[in-house]
Amino acid sequence: MFSNQAKAQTPETVNGIEVDKIISVIDDINIDAHNGKWQFRSENQWTGGATNQSKFKEYFANNGENIPHAKPFTLEADEPLILAGNDSAANPVEYLLHALTSCLTTSLVAHAAVRGIVVDDINTSTEGDIDIRGFLGMSEDVRKGYQAIRINMRVKSDASAEQLKELALFSPVYDVVSNSLPVALNIETYS
Amino acid sequence: MFSNQAKAQTPETVNGIEVDKIISVIDDINIDAHNGKWQFRSENQWTGGATNQSKFKEYFANNGENIPHAKPFTLEADEPLILAGNDSAANPVEYLLHALTSCLTTSLVAHAAVRGIVVDDINTSTEGDIDIRGFLGMSEDVRKGYQAIRINMRVKSDASAEQLKELALFSPVYDVVSNSLPVALNIETYS
Repeated sequence: MFSNQAKAQTPETVNGIEVDKIISVIDDINIDAHNGKWQFRSENQWTGGATNQSKFKEYFANNGENIPHAKPFTLEADEPLILAGNDSAANPVEYLLHALTSCLTTSLVAHAAVRGIVVDDINTSTEGDIDIRGFLGMSEDVRKGYQAIRINMRVKSDASAEQLKELALFSPVYDVVSNSLPVALNIETYS
Repeated sequence: MFSNQAKAQTPETVNGIEVDKIISVIDDINIDAHNGKWQFRSENQWTGGATNQSKFKEYFANNGENIPHAKPFTLEADEPLILAGNDSAANPVEYLLHALTSCLTTSLVAHAAVRGIVVDDINTSTEGDIDIRGFLGMSEDVRKGYQAIRINMRVKSDASAEQLKELALFSPVYDVVSNSLPVALNIETYS
């Protein structure tokens, strides 16, 4: 099935990414584009007040193949005290920042690996501005979601910040969020 | 500072939400709209391969007041084996589904509480379709992020599905995501 099965037995690992695994996915899609159609799913249960939890048990790849996770993942949500929660877990808009930042990081690392670009370290600060009047329904002129997000990545690599930014922008979550609001991504490199 | 401090000492709780806490935020903003300007922040550290973690230590409300979380929250990210990860944690696009679903749930519950609408239970199934060719850079015609998301909420309440949907749609994360791609939210009620 894989066109590079021989290579997969002695995988090349860059940035901790086994590059042949990604090449295998590409090979499968080149055989049949339907293998690119994936789906992720959650089941969420409200657990009272501002708390709820999502479970991720499986996902679907290769035109509908059901692949169970190694173990189900449970993600909790709550709100801070000021929003009538118990501050027992991150809140939904904080989860959005994690989704966005983690996706930019993984996209940069994986695309760098495929190109043989070594990355030694990444740390990232992310800020999201929100005018809570939107959520509270106090003004129709104020949007409910974030108004702007600023992301500062510090990457230890010999590659240029410009090239690394191109790789980070393959991020699916960046695609979703940046089409809705301004996301300022700054990458600073050091070696 | 709060206009309803007396009431806050005997809070009315609906759906597990102390309604007076939300009223207090609204009162503060009515005194000065700058109190509505909030900010959420994360610090993310790449931890090798497809893994990284975000820490949430504090947030900013009431025109820049720094409010520490009760404890810092740490969120892990990884990728499934098929994407060259170790499947040790949810991946970024799964975190996005959690952010979206948890936000719709909390928004519905809190806005219902303020209006005195009782909700007894909510469980929600969420599906996100993604064509992985976009992320892999295999086609410029395929977007990198989700192409569509479908959310089915089952709500135990005497309120109508139509009214509950209006309340859920105060969700900040829904605002962000639905302005970027089709999000089909279906709410079914039972009592």
